[in-house]
Amino acid sequence: MTQAALAFDLGGTDLRAALVLRDGSVAQVLTVPTAVTGGVAAVLAQMTGLAETLLALGPQGEIVGIGLGAPGPLDPATGLMIAPPTLPGWQDVPLAQLLADQLGHPVALDNDANMAAMGEWRFGAGRGHAHVLFITVSTGIGGGLVSEGKIFQGHRGLALEIGHMAISETGPRCACGSVGCFEALASGTALGRFGEAAAALPGGALIGQLQAEEGRPGARAVIAAARQGDAVAQALVAAEARWLGLGITNLLHLYSPDVVVIGGGLSNAFDLLQGGIASVVQQRAMSAYRDVAILRAELGAKAGLVGAAALAFSQADLRAQT
Amino acid sequence: MTQAALAFDLGGTDLRAALVLRDGSVAQVLTVPTAVTGGVAAVLAQMTGLAETLLALGPQGEIVGIGLGAPGPLDPATGLMIAPPTLPGWQDVPLAQLLADQLGHPVALDNDANMAAMGEWRFGAGRGHAHVLFITVSTGIGGGLVSEGKIFQGHRGLALEIGHMAISETGPRCACGSVGCFEALASGTALGRFGEAAAALPGGALIGQLQAEEGRPGARAVIAAARQGDAVAQALVAAEARWLGLGITNLLHLYSPDVVVIGGGLSNAFDLLQGGIASVVQQRAMSAYRDVAILRAELGAKAGLVGAAALAFSQADLRAQT
Repeated sequence: MTQAALAFDLGGTDLRAALVLRDGSVAQVLTVPTAVTGGVAAVLAQMTGLAETLLALGPQGEIVGIGLGAPGPLDPATGLMIAPPTLPGWQDVPLAQLLADQLGHPVALDNDANMAAMGEWRFGAGRGHAHVLFITVSTGIGGGLVSEGKIFQGHRGLALEIGHMAISETGPRCACGSVGCFEALASGTALGRFGEAAAALPGGALIGQLQAEEGRPGARAVIAAARQGDAVAQALVAAEARWLGLGITNLLHLYSPDVVVIGGGLSNAFDLLQGGIASVVQQRAMSAYRDVAILRAELGAKAGLVGAAALAFSQADLRAQT
Repeated sequence: MTQAALAFDLGGTDLRAALVLRDGSVAQVLTVPTAVTGGVAAVLAQMTGLAETLLALGPQGEIVGIGLGAPGPLDPATGLMIAPPTLPGWQDVPLAQLLADQLGHPVALDNDANMAAMGEWRFGAGRGHAHVLFITVSTGIGGGLVSEGKIFQGHRGLALEIGHMAISETGPRCACGSVGCFEALASGTALGRFGEAAAALPGGALIGQLQAEEGRPGARAVIAAARQGDAVAQALVAAEARWLGLGITNLLHLYSPDVVVIGGGLSNAFDLLQGGIASVVQQRAMSAYRDVAILRAELGAKAGLVGAAALAFSQADLRAQT
């Protein structure tokens, strides 16, 4: 019988669920607005409802486990959601156990970046590699490391907070209160803000116009302007690639992955960034680290769901071994 | 019968060997000048000779394995010494296997910083903790991470090259060719050089005098001057603590250890540095990481030997389980 995992991606806005087969293919994806105001019970009811629908839709298969990606802070070891900012009132909720009790299968809980790392390792750009570093560059910068098949967690699951690695002594203040954080310099949000500043300067007209059309000072307008040949936007994209290269060089020295996989919204501009990143790594990394491939993520918006399923499969395999 | 491990610490200058008991106590330490000019065969002969002497001196016990700390680059997985700069002519030497063949026990090979990390985790300041980050601050800066009883290696054993994490965009050029490396800003060598520069300035007379007495522009003179109340030296020590604090803050976010252990020559000034390090961590680390203890290493110069034995014990235990 076909083996499958149920995968959930719980966000403050949407709750997504999927049935994922052993080969990583996604049979069905369902999305509902998260019942935030209903609290834990309402969300749990949504999840069991989605699970029933998915199982009815099929294909029929043996469910080996459930993977649940959720916003941090959370404790993967105990399955506890500690106090997610996007789910007000959720304080120390043992969501993995609650869902397992409802659905009758073991539940593996972890955060989005770790799930995406699992997905890219097992089914995406990192497959076949022993040490996969996944970096998501989006509103912020997050990371996940899969080393010999396991997510590197550290104490309380708090490792890989790569967005708050300081790489400069100056720069805009980070949301965390510090200065020089990788995220404050190289996230999509940072690029959008640099674009907003440039829009007010000579030569910044196209960026300003595209940001106005988008309705917010985001990175997308900067990328679009760069693709249209705008010189200021191209300079900003080059600076973005340099910051990414500096951060990645550090991460190569610190984790020694055999492959780096870049996901998140800004990976849509991977073709524009790749050359600049590579050039900084060739210049700054020690020679033993220069041959590490830096690749674009393959799973896109499905990474969280596919990764949650990958974790469920891995844990099922571990249980089968012991 | 008492269980013991043979431990070797192979350097370009000295070769040290010890018999280490299960409780981490060191029964005997022998030191000889490394027979560098004799090549691999001569050094191997020295090692077998030292082993015989140690075993004769006793106490009598069951040898469960051998740990061998050596200069990198090396491959812990295959026991291969790749091309150590301090041992000219050693190219891809399978030293672990050669020594195992001579002595009839399995040999665990790893680099100095990883061995010291193992030692501090099993028998030193990090004992009882699941995730121990060891930092050695000396001529350079190195690191080792023991996570759930295992050294975190990464691809080709190249992880934890923490000395070459860039934390600034400026500063003196590092030996690796880059700029802003943790090691170039915060190693003992860096502090010595900052001292040398300060010695030429008003108020730097005591540092200059002590460095001259020492015969080289080292950190020791700066520390000694600071202990004598010299204001310039104290400012340099405060700057050193700040650099260490910035680097450690990054490492907390990246590895999430439950304890940080500081060893190496500069840990002799831990009492002078501790307050400054803690103050930067409190200011810059995110709140979840601020309670991580930062401790002085306990094993001192024996860390490498005790750690090599700790690795030998760990690997013996793993073999016994399977």
